[in-house]
Amino acid sequence: MVTGGARSGKSALAESIASRLGAARIYIATAEPGDGEMAERIALHRDRRGAGWQTVEEPLDLAGALARTEGQGVRLVDCLTLWLANQMAQGADSQTDTGPAIKALCAALAATRSPVVLVTNELGLGIVPENALARRFRDAHGWMNQAVAAVADEVWMAVSGLPLRLKPERETP
Amino acid sequence: MVTGGARSGKSALAESIASRLGAARIYIATAEPGDGEMAERIALHRDRRGAGWQTVEEPLDLAGALARTEGQGVRLVDCLTLWLANQMAQGADSQTDTGPAIKALCAALAATRSPVVLVTNELGLGIVPENALARRFRDAHGWMNQAVAAVADEVWMAVSGLPLRLKPERETP
Amino acid sequence: MVTGGARSGKSALAESIASRLGAARIYIATAEPGDGEMAERIALHRDRRGAGWQTVEEPLDLAGALARTEGQGVRLVDCLTLWLANQMAQGADSQTDTGPAIKALCAALAATRSPVVLVTNELGLGIVPENALARRFRDAHGWMNQAVAAVADEVWMAVSGLPLRLKPERETP
Repeated sequence: MVTGGARSGKSALAESIASRLGAARIYIATAEPGDGEMAERIALHRDRRGAGWQTVEEPLDLAGALARTEGQGVRLVDCLTLWLANQMAQGADSQTDTGPAIKALCAALAATRSPVVLVTNELGLGIVPENALARRFRDAHGWMNQAVAAVADEVWMAVSGLPLRLKPERETP
Repeated sequence: MVTGGARSGKSALAESIASRLGAARIYIATAEPGDGEMAERIALHRDRRGAGWQTVEEPLDLAGALARTEGQGVRLVDCLTLWLANQMAQGADSQTDTGPAIKALCAALAATRSPVVLVTNELGLGIVPENALARRFRDAHGWMNQAVAAVADEVWMAVSGLPLRLKPERETP
Repeated sequence: MVTGGARSGKSALAESIASRLGAARIYIATAEPGDGEMAERIALHRDRRGAGWQTVEEPLDLAGALARTEGQGVRLVDCLTLWLANQMAQGADSQTDTGPAIKALCAALAATRSPVVLVTNELGLGIVPENALARRFRDAHGWMNQAVAAVADEVWMAVSGLPLRLKPERETP
């Protein structure tokens, strides 16, 4: 799992990890190019990855996408934050609503054999949002990150483009 | 001191540290169950802690609560962010106003002998808030974290549920 | 480069690094004391630094300021975040617009011989801002941090007043 703030170099770090893990690489995109900003970002990421990547678009059923691509190479999921946002856009409104999908994803991650690199965001380090939906999203997102980090073999945080290893933990209290 | 973002696993980390430090454990809650969101969170935390904890509610006089519970076991204060917010709700409006209470807390922490685990938040890593009160809170909170970290024996940051040690520092420049 | 959140102890950390690097110290301020909050902060920082610092004000042309102060001592630039904001206030509106100045700064940093300590912020770790300008600023700022960190010899992050080393990296994936 690769986490970090906005524009911190998460995707580039995840791509370099994926490239180290295998030559057959599948990019699982959770974004939908709905608006201009997002379409621009998707194009930018695609240009950087270059050739050698197969792309799968899957805004909601990540467990299914992992099952369908099993045995075909390294999977890079970019990103869990949009996946969770897509669920909330479909009506899931809280940690309670998104919990089952997060558990299903963690079970799929524990079961899969081909490598998976997951990109997510750290987004709980600002002031409490005034918007109640943003607070519920932030809560559900934090639980998601904790659940996925718990089943991950490695967790890295990108800060200003630099990698900081969080798991295996360097020290525990 | 345990710091971190929202839903980053701070309280669980603090509870595991407290459990390691002693069997007699006192939970010093600074939250007041005023609204639904907060009441729900308090219930969630209480369920996770389970039995074996005595609870003390102290929204403002933390130095007093530490003095009153001296010699009775490990104290877990959850959390300093709400303690500071409670002071601002009482009329303290800035770093200047909250400085004396922060200094008194640090003096109490330096003087106390029974262990204390303190939960706080990192909340200055987002965009500058548009709201002037939020900016003043963010400033006062940052100074509080620096002052408490300076007197703490250990400082840990929780990220996606994983512990990162900040003090003792691994390297200094 | 020294990064971190608001009130995390970045400036104090940068000053201690600068003091270690040399006795002749030049403070390059990018802030303009336009409003009360900023004037107050500038005064606070100046008092902490104490004597032994020459001050240069340069809100926009950092590459020029580095060239003009070459060979005169250690330069401390405080901070890149305001420098980028000043550019946007002059009409630069995105990563595309600010890219050339960032590249020029990185070239100047690579070329200069006297030590430079740069203060910046981590500000992409909160919820996505609702304001489109804030999102563009956050994006441009993230690219700036990555570009400057890439040419820096050392990168430190301040958290609750404590230093965390990001570069040289402790581990890479």
